[in-house]
Amino acid sequence: MPVSPGRGAGRRAIEVVALDADDTLWHSEVYFERTQRRFTELVSRYTAPEVDVDAALAAVEHRNLHRYGYGIKGFTLSMVEAAIEVTDGAIGTEEVAQILASGQAMLDHPVDLIDGVDETVAALADAGYRLLLVTKGDLHHQELKIAASGLAERFERLEIVAEKDAVTYRKVVASTGVAPQAFCMVGNSVRSDVLPVLEIGGHAVHVPYHVTWAHEHADHDGTVPTLESIAELPAWLAELA
Amino acid sequence: MPVSPGRGAGRRAIEVVALDADDTLWHSEVYFERTQRRFTELVSRYTAPEVDVDAALAAVEHRNLHRYGYGIKGFTLSMVEAAIEVTDGAIGTEEVAQILASGQAMLDHPVDLIDGVDETVAALADAGYRLLLVTKGDLHHQELKIAASGLAERFERLEIVAEKDAVTYRKVVASTGVAPQAFCMVGNSVRSDVLPVLEIGGHAVHVPYHVTWAHEHADHDGTVPTLESIAELPAWLAELA
Repeated sequence: MPVSPGRGAGRRAIEVVALDADDTLWHSEVYFERTQRRFTELVSRYTAPEVDVDAALAAVEHRNLHRYGYGIKGFTLSMVEAAIEVTDGAIGTEEVAQILASGQAMLDHPVDLIDGVDETVAALADAGYRLLLVTKGDLHHQELKIAASGLAERFERLEIVAEKDAVTYRKVVASTGVAPQAFCMVGNSVRSDVLPVLEIGGHAVHVPYHVTWAHEHADHDGTVPTLESIAELPAWLAELA
Repeated sequence: MPVSPGRGAGRRAIEVVALDADDTLWHSEVYFERTQRRFTELVSRYTAPEVDVDAALAAVEHRNLHRYGYGIKGFTLSMVEAAIEVTDGAIGTEEVAQILASGQAMLDHPVDLIDGVDETVAALADAGYRLLLVTKGDLHHQELKIAASGLAERFERLEIVAEKDAVTYRKVVASTGVAPQAFCMVGNSVRSDVLPVLEIGGHAVHVPYHVTWAHEHADHDGTVPTLESIAELPAWLAELA
């Protein structure tokens, strides 16, 4: 799809805007956190007070990351495994069923767009940018969320990838047919959405999500382009031109 | 990537050969069946003799298909849920841990190529066909299997899709830049690999897998192109020209 001609001004620098999904377009991490708080509460009834249930879950998740990858199904399986392990089997199957149900409630949760996303995506589409959605995680669940978001028709293409690294972004950029200099990635993770794109010569901008900010901040020296809200994106892109 | 010129003969009909993965390139269903047999054996110790554990699992899987999609993680979650449900919670957490471990063993299982696949894929690549892999299921696990198969470099591209229907195939064919008449899909499922491709004007051929044959046979009138072994594919494609 060709970009609509610039209106009056010269050729625009950016032709393709790629957006991350979880915690960039819609809320996600808050639901993981809420579910984990309830999990810890439930499991702690069966452990000695000094046992760190969150740390036990983190260890199980880390051990399983290679085989489960990202997403709610793997998270749920790791919660069940951690609950049995950290309580030495003292937790009951009724609680296991509750953990399964909490994972299903996450999967079934309606898509909850972040403030400003709807208007911003519409503004970008109207301005003639080609829009891609580039997201990591569970293919089936991401497709359900994209369909439920009401945004799908604004996007030229959805790319659901297993890892967000330079190799992946090189393929994504190549598939659009534009040079990296005409490609801009937008997302809440400096590590996944910004650094690998800058590495291959593309543009990228960080839009922090309140929950992950502290964690991601550690990954860079504070000099990457950052916006306080996605609503600032159209003006920022226009300035790049 | 342009097709290498035909050797002597006229223009070849098929330029792109797309292959399904599970039960077309490597064994998959046999591992599901084996795991389910052990599951049924384990759970049946806690149920009355007249209870049909397989039917209970099938009901839970069907109920969860919309939220879990295809793949081993969803299968494992449904096994745990069915085990608790069908035993009214009488099964213990030790058995739940065994079910989790059986799912992990499936995920960790080495890729086991079907006889003839290695030679056939090499022959197709050497003959100048552009090869795609088009598979359904869990993105993370499929990428692990493709990487472990030793076949990845033969393929121009891997397409991991949520559903194999006419809409999806139309997009896949469009992305290759060839006409549907120059595209051929190969797979073990008449419903997923053959009928939707024929529907959009492409070529398709059924290579049945022994375990799924009976089930899939019911989906068509017996007139779709069928090969007994994937080893017959190069000759069959050459005859289409």
